[in-house]
Amino acid sequence: MKTEIYSCPGFTFSGCASGLKKNGENDLGLIYSETEASAAGVFTRNRVQAASVKLDRERIRSGKCQAIIANSGNANCCTGEQGELDNLAMTRVVASEMGIPEEMVLVASTGVIGKPLPIQKVERSVPELVRLLSANGMSAFAGAIMTTDTVPKIVIKKGEIHNTSFTITGVAKGSGMIRPDMATMLCFVCTDAASDPKLLQEMLLKGVEKSFNRITVDGDTSTNDMVLLLANGVSGAVIQDHDQIAVFQNQLDQVLSDLARMVVKDGEGATKLVEVKVEGAKSDHDARCIAETIAQSNLVKTALFGEDANWGRIIAAAGRAGVDMIPEKMDIFFNDVCMVQNGIGCGPAAEIEATKVLKKQEFVIQIRLNMGKGESSVLTCDFSVDYVKINADYRS
Amino acid sequence: MKTEIYSCPGFTFSGCASGLKKNGENDLGLIYSETEASAAGVFTRNRVQAASVKLDRERIRSGKCQAIIANSGNANCCTGEQGELDNLAMTRVVASEMGIPEEMVLVASTGVIGKPLPIQKVERSVPELVRLLSANGMSAFAGAIMTTDTVPKIVIKKGEIHNTSFTITGVAKGSGMIRPDMATMLCFVCTDAASDPKLLQEMLLKGVEKSFNRITVDGDTSTNDMVLLLANGVSGAVIQDHDQIAVFQNQLDQVLSDLARMVVKDGEGATKLVEVKVEGAKSDHDARCIAETIAQSNLVKTALFGEDANWGRIIAAAGRAGVDMIPEKMDIFFNDVCMVQNGIGCGPAAEIEATKVLKKQEFVIQIRLNMGKGESSVLTCDFSVDYVKINADYRS
Repeated sequence: MKTEIYSCPGFTFSGCASGLKKNGENDLGLIYSETEASAAGVFTRNRVQAASVKLDRERIRSGKCQAIIANSGNANCCTGEQGELDNLAMTRVVASEMGIPEEMVLVASTGVIGKPLPIQKVERSVPELVRLLSANGMSAFAGAIMTTDTVPKIVIKKGEIHNTSFTITGVAKGSGMIRPDMATMLCFVCTDAASDPKLLQEMLLKGVEKSFNRITVDGDTSTNDMVLLLANGVSGAVIQDHDQIAVFQNQLDQVLSDLARMVVKDGEGATKLVEVKVEGAKSDHDARCIAETIAQSNLVKTALFGEDANWGRIIAAAGRAGVDMIPEKMDIFFNDVCMVQNGIGCGPAAEIEATKVLKKQEFVIQIRLNMGKGESSVLTCDFSVDYVKINADYRS
Repeated sequence: MKTEIYSCPGFTFSGCASGLKKNGENDLGLIYSETEASAAGVFTRNRVQAASVKLDRERIRSGKCQAIIANSGNANCCTGEQGELDNLAMTRVVASEMGIPEEMVLVASTGVIGKPLPIQKVERSVPELVRLLSANGMSAFAGAIMTTDTVPKIVIKKGEIHNTSFTITGVAKGSGMIRPDMATMLCFVCTDAASDPKLLQEMLLKGVEKSFNRITVDGDTSTNDMVLLLANGVSGAVIQDHDQIAVFQNQLDQVLSDLARMVVKDGEGATKLVEVKVEGAKSDHDARCIAETIAQSNLVKTALFGEDANWGRIIAAAGRAGVDMIPEKMDIFFNDVCMVQNGIGCGPAAEIEATKVLKKQEFVIQIRLNMGKGESSVLTCDFSVDYVKINADYRS
C-alpha cells in the first residue's frame, strides 16, 4: 500500500500503540487540521451511547472541529461518570498539546463495552501521537482504529470545482455490530474543500443514507458508531451552489460507498460480499424491508457460506419482512441466472448455474416482486464458522 | 423412552419411512382420532405459505378433524399448482384408506422449500402408515416429523374435570427457522377432553402466546409452521364453564410450554438454554421488544456459546430495541449474580461469579429497567459453530 497517496491537503494523521490493545498494536490515532474545519457528524441511534458519542453530539453543534482523537480496544461505554471524565481528558490532553481549544477536539472510541478506560495510557501517549503527525500518516491512523478488522479501510477521491481540484479522504473501521440503521462503525472523512457546516451535514446525511445505512454484517448496532466529516477548505474549492454541491456529493458518495463496501467485505468471518437487490416492490420502503430481512437472515447467510443455492430461505425471509408481497409473482436471480420464476424454482439446470455464481467472492441476488416500482439494495456478507469463533472468543 | 406412556385415549399414531428423507429414517406420520374431534389451529404469519398451511386454514374453519398426515424432508412450499395438487392427494389417500371424508384430514409438511414433492412415495406408503396405527405409536410419529432435531419432543399431562380425568398429549418438531411470532415449527396436540371448536381455538391461541411465541433460535420464520389441537372427547370430560376452562388451559399451557422449551433446547447447534427476562419496563410491550432483541442478537448468542459474561453486548442490544430505556437505570443479573448496576459493571469479582453461571446448561439473564411495571420473557439458546455448519450443509 502506498501510504503517500492517502493524504488530504491541510490534514495530518498519526497512530501509535498506547497499550489499550493487549497485542501491542496501534490503538490510538489522531487527525489534525491545520486550520479550523467545518464539521458534520452522524451518530449511532442506539439508546445506549458511549461517552464519546454524547460529547461529540454536543460539540459538533458549533459546526467546527480541528482535531479528532480515536482509540480502539476500549469503547468507554457504560463506564459512568468516570468514563465521561476520562473521555473529556482525552480531548483535553490533545487540546493542550496542540494549543487549540478543547471544544475543537472530537473523540471516538471502539472496543469492549463496560471496562474502565485506562486514561493514563492515553495521556502518556498523546505527546508521541502529536510528534508523529504527518501528511502521510493515514495508514498509521487506519491501523489504530481497527478491532477485528483484518485490513485497513481508506478511500481517496478527487474532484474539481471551477477548475480548482479538491480531495476527499475517508477512513473507516467496521467488522461486527454492523447493521443498516446509521453508521454502524467509525468513519472519518477529510476534505480540503470548503463548506458551510449546515450544508456539510446535509451532504453527509445523504451520503450515509446511501452507503452505511445499506450494509449489514450481523444485525447488531454498536453504542459507539459515528461518521465525522471535516472540511478545512485549504484547496480553495468552495461548495456553495447547486452544481458545486452535485460535484462534491458525487465524490463524497463514492468515498462513503467504497468504505461501506470494504466494511462488509471485511465483516467478521466473511468470505463473500453479496448485494441483495429488490425491485418491483409497492414502494421503496417495502423494497428496503425485504432487502434488509433477506440480508440479515442467518439462514440465508449460512447458505451463502455453504455455497448452497437454497432460494427457499430467500423467499421465506422475504415473506416474513412484514410488507406486501405475492410469492406467486416473485422472481429471483443469482447474477443473471434465473433461479425462481413466479415463485417456482427453475429446476436443476438453473441450480447448477446458480451454484457457479455462489462460488464467486462477489455477486448479486436480485429479487423482482413484479408489483410496483419500489426498489432498494443492501450489501451483506456470508455467515461463517469463523464469525461464531471470533465472537465467542472476542474478550479472551 | 417408554412409548406406552405417550398415548391419548381415542387416538392412534404411526410413522414410517417413505423415502422422502435420503437417510431412510421415518418421514411420514399419521394421527387418527376414532371419533370426529373438535379442531383448532394456529398458522405461520409468513406471507409465503406452504400448500399444507393454505389448505388447513380452509379446512379448520369447520372446527372438525379426524386425521392429520405429516411429512418431513420436503416442505411442499413454492411448488406451484402441482404442489397444491400433491398436497390434496396426501389427504385424499388417507381419507380413502380410513373411509372418512377428505375434509376431515389435515396435512403438515416440513423440509426443503421449493422442491417438488415425490407424491408417489407418499401414496405408496399410506397403506402401511394406516396399518401401523397404534395407541402406542406416538414415538414413531414424533420421529417422522423430525428434520435437524436431535431428539423427539413429546409431552403428556393429565387433569381432572368434575372427577373425570383427561389427557393432553403434544408432539413437536423444531430446530431452525425459530422465532417468536407464532408457532415456528410443527406441533400437534391431542386430548380426550371435549370442547366446542371456538373455545378450543381461544384456549390454543392463549397457550401459544405464552409458549411458542416466546422462543427464538435464529430469528427466521418458516413457511410451514402450525400448531394443531384435536379434542375427541372420549374421556367424557367436557370443557364448558369458567373453572373447567381454567383447569384445561393450565394443563394445555404446560404441554405447550414444555414443548416450546424442548424446541429451544434442541435448537440447531444449541448447547445452552437461556431465559431472557425483562422487568421494570414502561409496558409489557416494551419489555418484550427488549427481551426479543437480546434473545435474537447474534453477538449475545455467540458470547453465550463462548461462556463470556460480555454484558456490554446485552446492554447494546437492549439499546437498539427501539423502545424507551435509560442505560443509567439498568441492572443485569446472571441467575442471582448482579453483573451491572445502574448501567455500570459490578467489577471483576462479579464477573468471575457470572462466568460460573455461564458454564451451566440452563440459566436466566434478568434485565431490570427500573422504569415501570412492564415485564416479559423469551427463551433462547446460544449460537454455536455447529449452527453454521448445520445450515451451510443443510441440503447437501
